[in-house]
Amino acid sequence: MDITPLFTITYGLYVVGSRSGDKLNGQISNTVFQVTADPVKVAVSISKAEFTHELISSTGKCCIGVLSEEADMTFIGNFGFKSGRDVDKFASIPYTLAPSGCPIPEVNILAYIDLEICNSIDVDTHTVFIGEVTDCGITGEGTPMTYSYYREVLCGKTPPTAPSYKLESHNLEKK
Amino acid sequence: MDITPLFTITYGLYVVGSRSGDKLNGQISNTVFQVTADPVKVAVSISKAEFTHELISSTGKCCIGVLSEEADMTFIGNFGFKSGRDVDKFASIPYTLAPSGCPIPEVNILAYIDLEICNSIDVDTHTVFIGEVTDCGITGEGTPMTYSYYREVLCGKTPPTAPSYKLESHNLEKK
Repeated sequence: MDITPLFTITYGLYVVGSRSGDKLNGQISNTVFQVTADPVKVAVSISKAEFTHELISSTGKCCIGVLSEEADMTFIGNFGFKSGRDVDKFASIPYTLAPSGCPIPEVNILAYIDLEICNSIDVDTHTVFIGEVTDCGITGEGTPMTYSYYREVLCGKTPPTAPSYKLESHNLEKK
Repeated sequence: MDITPLFTITYGLYVVGSRSGDKLNGQISNTVFQVTADPVKVAVSISKAEFTHELISSTGKCCIGVLSEEADMTFIGNFGFKSGRDVDKFASIPYTLAPSGCPIPEVNILAYIDLEICNSIDVDTHTVFIGEVTDCGITGEGTPMTYSYYREVLCGKTPPTAPSYKLESHNLEKK
């Protein structure tokens, strides 16, 4: 099946901050969306292979940071193409801590959404975590980065663990 | 809690086609996203109050149509601000049928994604349905409509059953 039609689905781009003890982590996700309005709940799909999956599963917390269009590939690559098991992704990124204790980058982030996970669904390679919004705030001004902006303007690639990964032919090389 | 930060989340806009016997229905949704790549699965959050919820729950099928930016408020309003219990939403809209039997509008739709529901999660007022993509195709050329385009350019409102509905102050009046 040619999955090109799936590339017409619109997404934003986010840094999902998580934490276990003193160990902070952050990863890029494009699958963040509000599922209910009362109470306010937000879902995020995370690969079971990710360190973030391990941290969210053990703590039941994460904090979504909404990426600004001003974020460059170096910033995104730090969170998106390395594993928090191998490197400290916040070593060179200034950050604050959300009430949950999860990190929020101080740069390139327009808003944060702090989540207490209340439900999850096992979907093969990924888990869709559903979290109640316990806190949220605006942290910057600008335009939220969309996934299409990331791919078309920044020419960003999609890592194999992303929900939307399929064929390398769909992944433009980073310029 | 001021939920303004949640409006920085990026969404597209879709017509979710469903069917029970000869009864066809379609509703607008902004919460459609791919959750896994192998097999390809897509999630959609639907209010329990919607007729679509009743149809998907009974048949386990729906077909996502990706809205084009060229869709106007009359077209969107037909699917978004009426109930299929009261009116035949496809009475004046030309359509084709996906392999699932669910309707796809022939106009203002860039792509269709046919789903066989394989899982669902109860989230208070809504159900997040997860479906395996059984067929998909490109049906038009253009730019996918984003939720922010709908709100900012078309000045579209958000109905009370939408996952992102909260305060009328956030809902601009239709011009």
